[in-house]
Amino acid sequence: MSEATFEEISASDFFYRNRDIAGFSNPSRAIFAAIRELVENSLDAAESIMVPPDIYVRLSFEKNVSKETQIYRLRVEDNGTGIPPRHIPLAFGQVLYGSKYKLKQQRGTFGLGGKMAILYGQITAHEPATIISSTGSTHIFMFKIMIDIQRNRPIIMDRKVLLNKSGWRGTIVEFALEGDYFRAMPKIIEYFKQTAIVNPYANLTFVDPRGRLYRFTRATTVMPEPPKETLPHPYGVDVELLQRLIQITPHENMLDFLRNHFHRVGRKTAEKFLEFSGIDASKNPKKLSHEEVVRLAQKLKEFKEFIPPDASCLSPLGEELLRTGILKELKPEFVAVHQRKPATYSGHPFIVEAAIAYGGEIPAKGQFLLYRFANRIPLLYDEASDVATKVINSMNWRRYKVTPDMPIAIVVHICSTKVPYKTVGKEFIADRPEVRREIANALREVARQLQRFLSKKEHVNREKKRMGVFSRYLPKIAQFSTKLAGKEKPPDIEKLLRSVSRLELE
Amino acid sequence: MSEATFEEISASDFFYRNRDIAGFSNPSRAIFAAIRELVENSLDAAESIMVPPDIYVRLSFEKNVSKETQIYRLRVEDNGTGIPPRHIPLAFGQVLYGSKYKLKQQRGTFGLGGKMAILYGQITAHEPATIISSTGSTHIFMFKIMIDIQRNRPIIMDRKVLLNKSGWRGTIVEFALEGDYFRAMPKIIEYFKQTAIVNPYANLTFVDPRGRLYRFTRATTVMPEPPKETLPHPYGVDVELLQRLIQITPHENMLDFLRNHFHRVGRKTAEKFLEFSGIDASKNPKKLSHEEVVRLAQKLKEFKEFIPPDASCLSPLGEELLRTGILKELKPEFVAVHQRKPATYSGHPFIVEAAIAYGGEIPAKGQFLLYRFANRIPLLYDEASDVATKVINSMNWRRYKVTPDMPIAIVVHICSTKVPYKTVGKEFIADRPEVRREIANALREVARQLQRFLSKKEHVNREKKRMGVFSRYLPKIAQFSTKLAGKEKPPDIEKLLRSVSRLELE
Repeated sequence: MSEATFEEISASDFFYRNRDIAGFSNPSRAIFAAIRELVENSLDAAESIMVPPDIYVRLSFEKNVSKETQIYRLRVEDNGTGIPPRHIPLAFGQVLYGSKYKLKQQRGTFGLGGKMAILYGQITAHEPATIISSTGSTHIFMFKIMIDIQRNRPIIMDRKVLLNKSGWRGTIVEFALEGDYFRAMPKIIEYFKQTAIVNPYANLTFVDPRGRLYRFTRATTVMPEPPKETLPHPYGVDVELLQRLIQITPHENMLDFLRNHFHRVGRKTAEKFLEFSGIDASKNPKKLSHEEVVRLAQKLKEFKEFIPPDASCLSPLGEELLRTGILKELKPEFVAVHQRKPATYSGHPFIVEAAIAYGGEIPAKGQFLLYRFANRIPLLYDEASDVATKVINSMNWRRYKVTPDMPIAIVVHICSTKVPYKTVGKEFIADRPEVRREIANALREVARQLQRFLSKKEHVNREKKRMGVFSRYLPKIAQFSTKLAGKEKPPDIEKLLRSVSRLELE
Repeated sequence: MSEATFEEISASDFFYRNRDIAGFSNPSRAIFAAIRELVENSLDAAESIMVPPDIYVRLSFEKNVSKETQIYRLRVEDNGTGIPPRHIPLAFGQVLYGSKYKLKQQRGTFGLGGKMAILYGQITAHEPATIISSTGSTHIFMFKIMIDIQRNRPIIMDRKVLLNKSGWRGTIVEFALEGDYFRAMPKIIEYFKQTAIVNPYANLTFVDPRGRLYRFTRATTVMPEPPKETLPHPYGVDVELLQRLIQITPHENMLDFLRNHFHRVGRKTAEKFLEFSGIDASKNPKKLSHEEVVRLAQKLKEFKEFIPPDASCLSPLGEELLRTGILKELKPEFVAVHQRKPATYSGHPFIVEAAIAYGGEIPAKGQFLLYRFANRIPLLYDEASDVATKVINSMNWRRYKVTPDMPIAIVVHICSTKVPYKTVGKEFIADRPEVRREIANALREVARQLQRFLSKKEHVNREKKRMGVFSRYLPKIAQFSTKLAGKEKPPDIEKLLRSVSRLELE
């Protein structure tokens, strides 16, 4: 009889063993994942200081490993906020250490992507990663690091400090990794293209291993209002979070506690809630018993009068920008866009934007084309499991006179302080009922607009056909009856035709 | 200009924040996930000591929380190996602490499931979990624990030691959690049913909140050979793993190092490899430089003469058992099963078993029914993203005279020391090329068998039709010609019919 043996592993070791779940499942996915994780960190780093991002990505061939895979060197440069030197080793060499654990709309959510890319590089190419960064101060800092995976700690192999004469600010990450660029290429190029659509204020440059240059130049330097860090909304608070807030609060009564730690809870709402829940406004939150905290969490969920979250912590694209992006890239005959009001799931605010584009250069593929975005990044893998796919499949499209063989593209963008991804690799979004409902409502709205367009188009076509019949036979009838009547000049057919037309002049 | 703030979070905190990725995305999924994680731990615990599992699951209603969700109490009892008392608090109260981090086929892989269930219970129902366990020793140990999520540590709320007079061995886990049983019910029942199919030697009992009893009684007490813990195969070794092995090895020369730490490397293979790679057989592995370790890892991948992994660490169902399960549960007219030889992806051995069942009680749904299993557990969610779905969609079924409107069920079972799940919730399997190839080959084999069956069936039908024509008209012709010839007895038609038949007698 064998007894089970127990052991403890580090977070780094967990993701080393299970890199599939972070998007690094094969050499082709890995190279895609490494590029996107670093590009998204760079976009966040520039946007956080309201600087239009300038991102330069270079992937160069190093050597062959096997028939399908090669070692590449990846270099990503940005003009973002830069990382203070004391944080650099941990930010790139310790899993679950990061700057992304905040209640704010941002691309990164797990504090994991950059580290996974470096970890994957280390275990496949066995070289330290180089990080060069400056916050624009007098110095530039360079670190060469590896990760001690078993202990989840960075190992600093080398460090240098340089004078920052030009006042450069930004971060450069460079490391080698194994990959299969040629299988990954279509997705990588598509990734840059779709990223350019939803980030029209960014310059993106990509030099691929063949030396080809892909440049996506910004169309504007105007950037959307940056999302603000926000407080948790009372509808999304559980006992765990309450306990954490109680631990750190400097406020010594419930009224101030509620007003200062929750999103959109002012004096009035706080007073009403305290009355509703039967909690003494002057009670010190630190003196609540476990049972009282549990009851407080329940009451927070039950109270009907909390104001829904505002959108200041969210930064959606906006209908205009979405329309522009679609018209520019997909060149359809018709496009309808719709932005929903802010909503919440488990207390996390989110906004859904959707669009339907029809005709023009959109191909008829026998099924709708689907473009998925979340917090302004494109999602390119595992479409079949995404909540948007589920909504689209469950909708009664015939009601809108729409069939899958039509040339139709559907765009769904969800912005949230916490996008409910199903995988750490950020491939697709979980099926939360609130999110599903918002997507369905947005799609219904644009589908209705498409239906109006299509029925008008059909009406126009029918009329054109009818008028075609008239205009083909009327001259003949006119000619014939003129002859019959012995007259010389036939009547004015144009006028006649106009009188039977039901179309407005176009 | 704001500077990013950095922080470190615990593994427990990471999964608390991101419970979607562990399968706990909504109240319905959460209750399904909690049950399956505990049942799978129980199956592993019984199988590890070769005892036919007796698992009792009870879910009882506690109170309403909202219109859709309720608090339930979940209790899972097993007759497995039991947990030594010193491990109980950590095994249930610390994420990434467990007994599953071994190279062995088992249901649990992440060392996370049970803890996630308890963590989810804690944040939704705010009560400690109770764990009662004995390894069959003189005592039974009871712990009430909660998890300190921020520090990823168990908090022991209570503990008791009882005399184990009856010599009981097993584990009981009980805790409260929020859920939506009525939405989850179909999946939960289906889960038990499919689990019973692939674990025919287990007794499963489920008492649901309405008090209904579902019993799946074992059909046999014969259990498959338990999988053995194995050594890593040289084709799956990376530098990280090599370094770990070098750290712990007691062997002081490369020959012994290779022979003792790698799967299916004997003296002969080790000698050949050392010659191939130009490494001195007497070299002390602890004296290898980083460059030499890197080169060793590369050479291990390049060497062509390593023997493929054997299947002793794997425990597939077997063609007979798979066929029996399918015939019993799906009642088809025809079934073809096929087990592939062991294969590897990234050095992890795996075996694919597949089956196609046709007709009988299988409904024609307009698409194939797909049953997915991995290490003898059913996978019920996110079918669309599974590698099996991708293989099925990319196969040219017309070649096998098969169309999606036929009543066809496809079964795919993959066994591995490491199933490449895409999510921590074990919903679906990543698209590894080696796995894809094995599934495709297995499906092609069973599809060919189905094709033979179908064409034989078609042939039989055609012949039956042809013979029908003969047997309808021949008696008339015989009668007529008998009359015409003035004879009295018509010729023997049976004999005539037999002579034109191309069918063997059935």
